[in-house]
Amino acid sequence: MGAAVRIMFICARPARDVGFEYFLQDEGAGLPLGKWPDLRQRGMSEQEARQMTFRFDISARDGRARSGTIHTPRGDIRTPAFMPVGTAATVKAMMPESVRETGADILLGNTYHLMLRPTAERIAALGGLHRFMNWDRPILTDSGGFQVMSLASLRKLTEEGVRFASHIDGSRHMLSPERSMEIQRLLGSDIVMSFDECTPFPADEKVARASMELSMRWAARSRAAFGDRPGYALFGIQQGSIYRDQRAESAEKLREIGFDGYAIGGLAVGEGQELMFDVLDYAPAQLPEDKPRYLMGVGKPDDIVGAVQRGVDMFDCVLPSRSGRTGQGWTARGPVNLRNARHRDDPRPLEDGCTCPACRNYSRAYLHHVIKADEIIGSMLLTWHNLAYYQRLMQGLRDAIVEGGLDGFAASFHARRAEGDIDPI
Amino acid sequence: MGAAVRIMFICARPARDVGFEYFLQDEGAGLPLGKWPDLRQRGMSEQEARQMTFRFDISARDGRARSGTIHTPRGDIRTPAFMPVGTAATVKAMMPESVRETGADILLGNTYHLMLRPTAERIAALGGLHRFMNWDRPILTDSGGFQVMSLASLRKLTEEGVRFASHIDGSRHMLSPERSMEIQRLLGSDIVMSFDECTPFPADEKVARASMELSMRWAARSRAAFGDRPGYALFGIQQGSIYRDQRAESAEKLREIGFDGYAIGGLAVGEGQELMFDVLDYAPAQLPEDKPRYLMGVGKPDDIVGAVQRGVDMFDCVLPSRSGRTGQGWTARGPVNLRNARHRDDPRPLEDGCTCPACRNYSRAYLHHVIKADEIIGSMLLTWHNLAYYQRLMQGLRDAIVEGGLDGFAASFHARRAEGDIDPI
Repeated sequence: MGAAVRIMFICARPARDVGFEYFLQDEGAGLPLGKWPDLRQRGMSEQEARQMTFRFDISARDGRARSGTIHTPRGDIRTPAFMPVGTAATVKAMMPESVRETGADILLGNTYHLMLRPTAERIAALGGLHRFMNWDRPILTDSGGFQVMSLASLRKLTEEGVRFASHIDGSRHMLSPERSMEIQRLLGSDIVMSFDECTPFPADEKVARASMELSMRWAARSRAAFGDRPGYALFGIQQGSIYRDQRAESAEKLREIGFDGYAIGGLAVGEGQELMFDVLDYAPAQLPEDKPRYLMGVGKPDDIVGAVQRGVDMFDCVLPSRSGRTGQGWTARGPVNLRNARHRDDPRPLEDGCTCPACRNYSRAYLHHVIKADEIIGSMLLTWHNLAYYQRLMQGLRDAIVEGGLDGFAASFHARRAEGDIDPI
Repeated sequence: MGAAVRIMFICARPARDVGFEYFLQDEGAGLPLGKWPDLRQRGMSEQEARQMTFRFDISARDGRARSGTIHTPRGDIRTPAFMPVGTAATVKAMMPESVRETGADILLGNTYHLMLRPTAERIAALGGLHRFMNWDRPILTDSGGFQVMSLASLRKLTEEGVRFASHIDGSRHMLSPERSMEIQRLLGSDIVMSFDECTPFPADEKVARASMELSMRWAARSRAAFGDRPGYALFGIQQGSIYRDQRAESAEKLREIGFDGYAIGGLAVGEGQELMFDVLDYAPAQLPEDKPRYLMGVGKPDDIVGAVQRGVDMFDCVLPSRSGRTGQGWTARGPVNLRNARHRDDPRPLEDGCTCPACRNYSRAYLHHVIKADEIIGSMLLTWHNLAYYQRLMQGLRDAIVEGGLDGFAASFHARRAEGDIDPI
């Protein structure tokens, strides 16, 4: 086993030629060499070693909010955590080492995109997603369920799963709980999401219930297909739309099945912040207290602050990277549209005190210029800044929880945003 | 004076508010604080200090080839030198610190693009091009003459200069020797190119002569308009198409006027490598022996090797950056098209032994994937690799000249390229 793995990395030959299939079955693709076996060698029982490989410690609480650490074999994730989105094996316009420099502990990868291009089998043969995209820290992958419904064509949803045609080349594919687990295993994802249907909004109680119950049957199949993979985590996803009793029932089903973490799904799909916060006033408490809670696809900075206050530990969103590519910079004083001519002669940094390269080395005038000229460095600098801003916000939230000052932090967060951007020069 | 300059950098306010205009007139935009005055304070005569600020030392020769150093107040330029092109105040898809990491000592900026957007006056008010684009080493700017003829519309060429309409917004502008010198001064360019007409190819002897003679009159006006600017250099540009006698006459005129360096213009405009090398067999020797010789807009790696063998010291070309954005990687074994499906499963680096991030951290399979998926990191990684390859080639040429082994180096360069890319896996 060990020899086979070593050969894989030294020869850089397709791993399946040298026994990779067995390795995959046994320990998952791309586990850092020696990590899990090392723990056993250090005299730990299997139970102890397993706990070391994926464990959530809550170290501080403030109201419903919690701060802590998710321990994984690939490194710790400080919570509340924001996960930058690396859809197609890259956080767009960023080098992975720069993403890490912003303070990110974990990335999100998209099963739907990767299964179509370059394919999960290809990534596995190349040593797993971490190695492929040069990110050696934890990766969470979604199940593909959300994006197959929003991006693919010719979709046919059955009890078995979803048949669809690729938005890239029209090729036909199938996603099911079993196939999603297989893909995420091939990718070497550290945190695997169970396959679900993201209930659209709005949905009446009957539609929402049918969708939730399907997702719960798929959750059980996901759990069974995932199997026993020490060092890797499987998260269940709560559905139930905006119906409290359905959310409670979904949470209960997930608890029965048993997961390493629990996501709150079906939010940030058009219901607006007020309704979302209404759900978050009860949904997190329905989930197990001692496991990470992950609010999928959220969100804007004020969404995140409100959700952390309501007990959420993990977030992901394309907003900081996507808006960076369209000239929007996020600051403590709110979003700034750098395409606006008011920045044309402004020698000041985008955000005073920010240590990202965009703020440290360039003026607003420069950012305005390169965005107007469609220069790639505009996307590079603004994405970097936005990711740095998001991670700074998460660090502020973590510190505030530890100090028991989250409400004060939130008040000051809202007050600074209300001020708006600095006056034009 | 010093106080005014200091205020500019500390307050980060538009420099013209605090006496920048005087500073511009006196010492040029963006000269590193204290450098030139420091030399005077250290007891040097003006003559000595001036020599320190721009000087060319040839330290080795091999046949017609030379290797040496251009000393400037902003740093040394090792020759033969390749200058990456930073058209619109950015080397596309690169952070300037990464450009430096590839080994570049100097960048090229484009007068035509910068005068239109964001404008030279704006860049001057923001502290000069170096500060604007975060590159504190030498910058050479072209005169705008070549690009106004290739990019602008409604051009009208007269003895005075060229009137034209911007390709961006149709606004009307004028470029003349005097205006080109003013723009390059406003930008703070370290090496200023005199304003010329790049004679198109083919041109019969009569057309070529008229064009060359116009360029020589413009060269004299450029010299007069440039004035006396210690620490900054003005280069003249030889024209004369493929006619040896016209090249000789042009060189003689330029010598009479007197420049800090001499460019060979009007090549790499469609005449092909054979004709270009024919001209380079005599043109460099027509220019002053003790000044840098710069072959504008060249070129492919084999063009550069042949031109260095023929006595050229400086080069610039968009090829490594532009081709990086279209999926082409340059290696010692020739260009590699990473879009090709043969790389889809290839775990090997683009170029074995290369220390750039693309080769150090990624497989050909990854590069193929991100290029096919139009991911920005594809442009970032391949541009980085190509610039690193070019600088490695220049270092190899410099070392070979120092060791007296240039012909052997060139033979081995051609032999490796003839091998072609590594076999598919």
